[in-house]
Amino acid sequence: MGIILIGERINGSFKDVGKAIQEKNKSVILDWVAKQTAAGADYLDVNMGAASRSTDDFAWLVRTVAEATMLPLSIDCNRLDMFSTGLKAHRETVGERPVLINSTTAEDSKLIPLLELAAEYKASIIGVVMDERGSPQDVDRRLELGGKIFAAALEAGLSTEQIFLDPIVMPVKFMQDQAKYVLDAVQQMTMLSDPPPHISVGLSNVASKTEQRKLINRTYMVMAMAMGLDAAILNVCDEEMMQAIATAEILLGQEIYSDAYLKAYRQRASSTSA
Amino acid sequence: MGIILIGERINGSFKDVGKAIQEKNKSVILDWVAKQTAAGADYLDVNMGAASRSTDDFAWLVRTVAEATMLPLSIDCNRLDMFSTGLKAHRETVGERPVLINSTTAEDSKLIPLLELAAEYKASIIGVVMDERGSPQDVDRRLELGGKIFAAALEAGLSTEQIFLDPIVMPVKFMQDQAKYVLDAVQQMTMLSDPPPHISVGLSNVASKTEQRKLINRTYMVMAMAMGLDAAILNVCDEEMMQAIATAEILLGQEIYSDAYLKAYRQRASSTSA
Repeated sequence: MGIILIGERINGSFKDVGKAIQEKNKSVILDWVAKQTAAGADYLDVNMGAASRSTDDFAWLVRTVAEATMLPLSIDCNRLDMFSTGLKAHRETVGERPVLINSTTAEDSKLIPLLELAAEYKASIIGVVMDERGSPQDVDRRLELGGKIFAAALEAGLSTEQIFLDPIVMPVKFMQDQAKYVLDAVQQMTMLSDPPPHISVGLSNVASKTEQRKLINRTYMVMAMAMGLDAAILNVCDEEMMQAIATAEILLGQEIYSDAYLKAYRQRASSTSA
Repeated sequence: MGIILIGERINGSFKDVGKAIQEKNKSVILDWVAKQTAAGADYLDVNMGAASRSTDDFAWLVRTVAEATMLPLSIDCNRLDMFSTGLKAHRETVGERPVLINSTTAEDSKLIPLLELAAEYKASIIGVVMDERGSPQDVDRRLELGGKIFAAALEAGLSTEQIFLDPIVMPVKFMQDQAKYVLDAVQQMTMLSDPPPHISVGLSNVASKTEQRKLINRTYMVMAMAMGLDAAILNVCDEEMMQAIATAEILLGQEIYSDAYLKAYRQRASSTSA
């Protein structure tokens, strides 16, 4: 019932992980599997960043993570051959465990083959509301593209529960208006169907290049949760973020209040990692 | 454009203020005027709590605060004779400066005379959405009573800008479901008219008797701001609260982003107090 938290840290854009990918050093990766699991991640994102363009390296990374955790993976890349490789490596390692394709856009040349892949692998998918015309600048365009992705995904045989729409968070420092538009889009996306698809954001982008990154991230997170956001890719190892999320879940009635709800939240996380 | 913050601290329910009222000790009161003004209050609430039931004491308290500040006062009590006394003392001290009646309910025996008083003193008014049947337990009842108060206030000659609706925040510890209902009510109240009336809450009630008061208060505050809340009675001297509010204002586009927005927010507060 609570929010779905996708741990962002296994990403080659982070120096330690990038180096680990290039050196095939499992221990750095496994350390982030353990830390994010203990922190309360529901999914682990797996992304090579610019560390490698090799499908073999991606297969290694996916296998390394999949065999070390019971959590579902978010296969995060932007090439069709990479997704195929990642999903195949995932299935070979752990069978038909749930897995998330992160992500498609609304562009037909990407959307159609990735939905076919999702259907083939019984995967969930994140649909980011942009297309060949670029990123949306208002609420309506976000809804239009969200509606297109949602309809196409249902058509391809996915269930509503397998569909995540991402209204694209932009840096408040450079595109301040967009922050409010995304909040409005989140809310309107919850009205696409009943029950609605998941609504997910890549959170950390909002605070990009700001001096108050953690404060901006956690404030935006709970505001978006109020609007109906139920998933996010974020830094689950940020303790204040997780306290804010636990509190928002209580205030939205998604978890039962107890005086020790913060402790209960941490224990829930640790029990997943056991 | 930003949120209207009503400083809650000049209230006889706090031990120091209660004692100051009984002893007619101005310095304690003036200290809270200065502190809340420096912290960024837009209004100062003035409430005797249980410290006294004397209208003379209330007149003294209102005069003491009014003559010490340029900020508008929120005259906070629950007896008609007390409101008359307070508004009269306010006018005698500072003339026709803006002032807020805090608060009426939707009950005709209170609503009608208090709206008359508001019209007579050109005061704004907070209308709390309860009546002789008690507090609302759902969203619809909040909207029904909010609509009644709003219509009656317009009828009495108040402008939309002078009307504040309060959907009644309840303790999450004891009435957890109500927290979400209030968020939904806030949003729906913003659709009562265009422009809408102000939507205000007595914030601190949400965290009553909890062990995480500050975290719950500031999390709920920014969630409610996302839904359209534009006023609150709260502890403006809570630094983390004010940082969260400043951040939410940036994310809602109510203030222009700058890297030093937290500092700018504090300076704006200090300039009011100069």
